[in-house]
Amino acid sequence: MVTAMASEELTKNIGLRGVTVADSKISMVDGNAGKLNYRGFAIQDLAQEATFEEIIHLLLIGTAPNIDQLSVLKEKMAEYRTLSPEIIASLQARPPHAAPIDVMQGIVTALADHDPNLASTDRDTVYDSCLRLIASFALAAAAWQRIRNNKEVVQPTTKTSHAAAFLEALWGRIPNKDESELMNLLLILHAEHTFNASTFSVREVASTQAHLYASVSAGVGALSGALHGGANARVMEMLLEIGSLDNVEPWVTKRIEAGQRVMGLGHAVYKTRDPRAAILQQVAAKVLAGREEEKWFKLGLEVEKTGRACLQKKKQLDLYPNVDFYCSPVLYGIGLPIDMFTVFFAVSRVSGWCAHYLEERFAEAQPKPALYRPKAHYTGRDCGPSGCRWTPLESRGEGCPHGKNFEGCCEGYKDEEGCTC
Amino acid sequence: MVTAMASEELTKNIGLRGVTVADSKISMVDGNAGKLNYRGFAIQDLAQEATFEEIIHLLLIGTAPNIDQLSVLKEKMAEYRTLSPEIIASLQARPPHAAPIDVMQGIVTALADHDPNLASTDRDTVYDSCLRLIASFALAAAAWQRIRNNKEVVQPTTKTSHAAAFLEALWGRIPNKDESELMNLLLILHAEHTFNASTFSVREVASTQAHLYASVSAGVGALSGALHGGANARVMEMLLEIGSLDNVEPWVTKRIEAGQRVMGLGHAVYKTRDPRAAILQQVAAKVLAGREEEKWFKLGLEVEKTGRACLQKKKQLDLYPNVDFYCSPVLYGIGLPIDMFTVFFAVSRVSGWCAHYLEERFAEAQPKPALYRPKAHYTGRDCGPSGCRWTPLESRGEGCPHGKNFEGCCEGYKDEEGCTC
Repeated sequence: MVTAMASEELTKNIGLRGVTVADSKISMVDGNAGKLNYRGFAIQDLAQEATFEEIIHLLLIGTAPNIDQLSVLKEKMAEYRTLSPEIIASLQARPPHAAPIDVMQGIVTALADHDPNLASTDRDTVYDSCLRLIASFALAAAAWQRIRNNKEVVQPTTKTSHAAAFLEALWGRIPNKDESELMNLLLILHAEHTFNASTFSVREVASTQAHLYASVSAGVGALSGALHGGANARVMEMLLEIGSLDNVEPWVTKRIEAGQRVMGLGHAVYKTRDPRAAILQQVAAKVLAGREEEKWFKLGLEVEKTGRACLQKKKQLDLYPNVDFYCSPVLYGIGLPIDMFTVFFAVSRVSGWCAHYLEERFAEAQPKPALYRPKAHYTGRDCGPSGCRWTPLESRGEGCPHGKNFEGCCEGYKDEEGCTC
Repeated sequence: MVTAMASEELTKNIGLRGVTVADSKISMVDGNAGKLNYRGFAIQDLAQEATFEEIIHLLLIGTAPNIDQLSVLKEKMAEYRTLSPEIIASLQARPPHAAPIDVMQGIVTALADHDPNLASTDRDTVYDSCLRLIASFALAAAAWQRIRNNKEVVQPTTKTSHAAAFLEALWGRIPNKDESELMNLLLILHAEHTFNASTFSVREVASTQAHLYASVSAGVGALSGALHGGANARVMEMLLEIGSLDNVEPWVTKRIEAGQRVMGLGHAVYKTRDPRAAILQQVAAKVLAGREEEKWFKLGLEVEKTGRACLQKKKQLDLYPNVDFYCSPVLYGIGLPIDMFTVFFAVSRVSGWCAHYLEERFAEAQPKPALYRPKAHYTGRDCGPSGCRWTPLESRGEGCPHGKNFEGCCEGYKDEEGCTC
């Protein structure tokens, strides 16, 4: 007595894949052509010519800032790049073994306590809160990495570059120009990617008219999932497992013959080379050349070459490396522990989430966005018109005769015709 | 040069209203008939005959527990009904003015730190984590209400009733039978309501394979929105504003004539009487009779009578009170401050969220649930095949000539044909 199986409509909507839920002007991905644009501008141009601060303005406001606007944005971010004693106490209250991404999901809710404009529904004011959140989020991430290692929290002296300030707060020293530029590039490449699961979570929560911090915290939670933000960590674990150039061929061959994935090859959306991967490969090669940190990057290149060739030969699959593939050895190379990779991702993506929060709450689109409240197809217990009978506790018997512990078990429930399992 | 307006498909999907996204066996709402079932059992029967502990088993496992199962569940919950020093420190780190629902969204991420089975993907083990979360969530809520009022955190001595233990932790005294029964009823009525915005947020985050706490934290965030969990607070604010029975008629008439809503009348799903409201009205009348706390409840009854009559007469609208309508004066009557109403809602709903987490991660349904990743319809800047040109900072001019600060402004962006605003 269970209702019909999944409807045709549900099968069509599984994971909402291909279901259009909103208008958006923030970014566009063309997976077949391998193109990614922020606000109409190709990621390649932005990666070469922009700073992360310009990207923040571009994503949130919709336009490239002019000199005055950029200067105002940088001043505001420098002002907001500080952590209150309460925020530091909140971080210190988490045990050192806490997952950094869980700590970040929590600390975003606490950052709300210190925003004097939390209740504002004025777009310019909420935009200002976005700058506050982007600035302090990076600082809290760096602080947690230091706190859990028993190091003092560092207030960065760098005022003009978010990338440099983040590294200074993380390392306790001012980064050199190459290091800052590399971090700037990494931040730009991860800032935005349309309606992925975390961005959609942010918009879902925003659609209830929850404030910015409640919404972005949900995005961090979604990013923590193995199917989403956890992928870059998996790539690095793979490289560490392979360990040396000699081991690439036997490892990759064995893996592919066993029908398993080579982490970082292939992407759900891109059917050709991920444009971010191509950019990162070039820049990382240049920046890391001759340095010790180059080792993992070179290992990645070898895995790509061997992996692609092997997949083509054995599976007739033409898979390209995605952005995680090069990002991981670069992050590891600059000293970030693997469990901070997803946090780095969030330090960048918080800019995209903020842009989507603003769009969800303040878009002038018609029809207006509405609270997301989808439908479920009920396939559960149905006792017909007379309804199921709630048996008194004492007459519920011995438990499920079929040994099932979850749904489908009939214990405690009998209708006119007996067990309905 | 902006792409086409919202497609027909989008208009159809706004807010995902009516879009089926999953199979579910957990609950069913029939808005036209005014029916709500948990796992096939009518809410009326459950409200009269069950305890919240039985509801937890029913929602999470799918069946009514027998005596042994219920006793195991109660023992586990009693064991888990404790807060570590780190959790208390996390609460103490938040400033007293922090919104209780924000504090709860954060503390759920910290509860993860103390779950030894956080990484488990075994259903029975994750079910155990659910009991841990439901038990400690209520305790953390009570602790925050005491901490922000400079009171000692109370470890409840009550072992057998979640409702009584929650009230003991909140008040610092063991509640009497009437008080426990009323809280038990309130917890049952708010436990589950299919795919509302918070439940869908939990499932969205769960679909990335994020852990239970990351997912439920997102649900708390969604519940914090004014369009979702904030409604019961609005009802109470309305009753306080009206203040006395004498003022009901002039207040309600003025409001309705101005075309404004009477909070708590009408529901997005129920087109008739919300079955939960009917139950609560009866029980609250009995429990509160003759007590001082009855005042707000009686005021609510008068607002209902006058509001419904006025709406019928002036607007030809037949609106019934929803569950918030009676819940609010009852919560206020038992001494809960208004900004804790949504937290109370979460203390109950965390059971439904846990059931949905288990279903999203472990359902045997075909097709399998997949990462929710919907599509957006790109309506942003489009510079044609040659692409938009990223102008160097120094030649970006004076800013938008149209005075616009957000999307649509052309500053810093020109294509071959000039400004594209």
